[in-house]
Amino acid sequence: MSDGNCQSDVNEPPCAKKIKIDEKNDNGVAEPVLELKDFIPSKILNNNTNRKTVCVQGNFKDKSGVALVILEKNAFKEDELDSKGYFSVESDLKTFFQNDIYGNFECFPKSSINGVKTTIIYPATEKHIAKFSQQEVHIIQETSDCYNKLTLPHIEKEQFNLQWVYNILEGRSEQDRVVYDNKCEKEGFVLVPDLKWDGLTKETLYLLAIVRQRGIKSLRDLDGSHLPLLKRVRDEGKKAIFEKYKVPGSQLRIYFHYQPSFYHLHIHFTYLRHEAPGIYAEKSHLLDTVINNIEMMTDYYKKATLPFTIREMDTLFNVYETNGYVQKIKPDIKLIDK
Amino acid sequence: MSDGNCQSDVNEPPCAKKIKIDEKNDNGVAEPVLELKDFIPSKILNNNTNRKTVCVQGNFKDKSGVALVILEKNAFKEDELDSKGYFSVESDLKTFFQNDIYGNFECFPKSSINGVKTTIIYPATEKHIAKFSQQEVHIIQETSDCYNKLTLPHIEKEQFNLQWVYNILEGRSEQDRVVYDNKCEKEGFVLVPDLKWDGLTKETLYLLAIVRQRGIKSLRDLDGSHLPLLKRVRDEGKKAIFEKYKVPGSQLRIYFHYQPSFYHLHIHFTYLRHEAPGIYAEKSHLLDTVINNIEMMTDYYKKATLPFTIREMDTLFNVYETNGYVQKIKPDIKLIDK
Repeated sequence: MSDGNCQSDVNEPPCAKKIKIDEKNDNGVAEPVLELKDFIPSKILNNNTNRKTVCVQGNFKDKSGVALVILEKNAFKEDELDSKGYFSVESDLKTFFQNDIYGNFECFPKSSINGVKTTIIYPATEKHIAKFSQQEVHIIQETSDCYNKLTLPHIEKEQFNLQWVYNILEGRSEQDRVVYDNKCEKEGFVLVPDLKWDGLTKETLYLLAIVRQRGIKSLRDLDGSHLPLLKRVRDEGKKAIFEKYKVPGSQLRIYFHYQPSFYHLHIHFTYLRHEAPGIYAEKSHLLDTVINNIEMMTDYYKKATLPFTIREMDTLFNVYETNGYVQKIKPDIKLIDK
Repeated sequence: MSDGNCQSDVNEPPCAKKIKIDEKNDNGVAEPVLELKDFIPSKILNNNTNRKTVCVQGNFKDKSGVALVILEKNAFKEDELDSKGYFSVESDLKTFFQNDIYGNFECFPKSSINGVKTTIIYPATEKHIAKFSQQEVHIIQETSDCYNKLTLPHIEKEQFNLQWVYNILEGRSEQDRVVYDNKCEKEGFVLVPDLKWDGLTKETLYLLAIVRQRGIKSLRDLDGSHLPLLKRVRDEGKKAIFEKYKVPGSQLRIYFHYQPSFYHLHIHFTYLRHEAPGIYAEKSHLLDTVINNIEMMTDYYKKATLPFTIREMDTLFNVYETNGYVQKIKPDIKLIDK
């Protein structure tokens, strides 16, 4: 039930379960040991300088097939901010400049507290490479006409499987995770923690409200008849989250994605200070703004031009490209040239 | 001419010029040398686990006054992703798990390539502490009525100084930085690189369009009469950026902030993949959406309820708190307890 984007799950391959295994397998045979010193890099697929992650494509010495190495600087652990950790005699300090009360330095802490999260995928497929490559992204301005002629036929043709959504709504899956449940078939919804959230840390709070009414694909389908449903999600969702997690409504970001990752109406609740994926203006629509727009103009979402972002690898991109709405960027391949 | 938020300039005190100075000052007197081993932490003011930055308050042994230490993990340098850097025999690798083609490890690179950007502010004032402290943030839903009764009188009372804007428009400042200039008094604008941008790196492209017409404070003042101006900014801005920086319009995020950081109408242009500060749905309004809203309803921005975020330390917060629209969070002070 994840509604993430490519960036958020860079280090969490969905099929990799977190099982610590020995270097010997069940038959007592040693697993192949991969060592970073044997990795021969050929291309940087992605370097995120904000989040301090990088993905490098290459291969291992004397081994066939492509490998990906994904590195991510660790966040600071608060219990290492002490005289045994960063503030110890083992931290070397190099001065860049000092000016009045401000000093800029580079600190070289002891290696043991300065680890780098490392993921190796070997052998990696073309799909892995595409997933971890920085994709060219474009904004499309979807008019009402574009929606009806291009987007809607595409959604209907793709026939996204929504069985997992119905399983939650009908209590067949994830029942123990439900935070709030309003069983009204017309205006009810289920509130569950998003799979990206650990369910505990207030700083990264992330829940999803999934409406019970079927057939509302996205924002585009909303009009005045849905106002009671939308207000119920807002008001009861806020109340349930305050009761369970003590986060007040004024500190929640409550929003739709457009395009959504699945076409059954759902609403995201995140902690306002949490920089969750996909909360940018070109992708997210605050529930309060949606309610207000519909109150001002009942058919707002039928008529409006709505922006959405799309990667060149997405199938919907081809539809818009073929019809002349957007053009691909000429490739600019970054090679490590040594 | 920066329009940033608190997070973006955490490591760039505006008054600290980047001058490398000796440990001796002009009179040959040794400057006080600060060492991290002498830092006694008392409180974590802010720990951003996405961007991997932390700000710690404390003091230096045998020295009076408060000090702040701000640490930030460095982004990966691409020329260190080789057999002498991360992929060298000196990188230790600890295995968390291996499962099929996926392996998760922690890598401990040699210390010299794994520096941490370090800023020390000493002695630090109360203002520094407030600036670097994680602030409680709230969303306010500003109705048309709230704007007229609470926000507008506040803006008028504060009388933000706009002289620096007029200096740019009249060619008295930053003239060498102007990327595009349309001198029409009614529909013209000046396009300049934002101060947060180095003016070179496509990945972090950030420009500001400042309109020539005076007296348009923000989004709230826009109506049908401004459509020619808005379309000109959009179309000529895109064209100028493509000609100079080769970034096509479909890869630009073009938007207003609400509330803006200064009340003279200006429009942000950033590269779509750049996670610039303040691009979240609760703060940014895409220019195309604004144009479309006004086309559908000429007085949209007079009537609409607009969200904005506000920190408890902002003076406008008090106005809304006093009038019962929002409540402060009870303090939850994080102390390092050792």
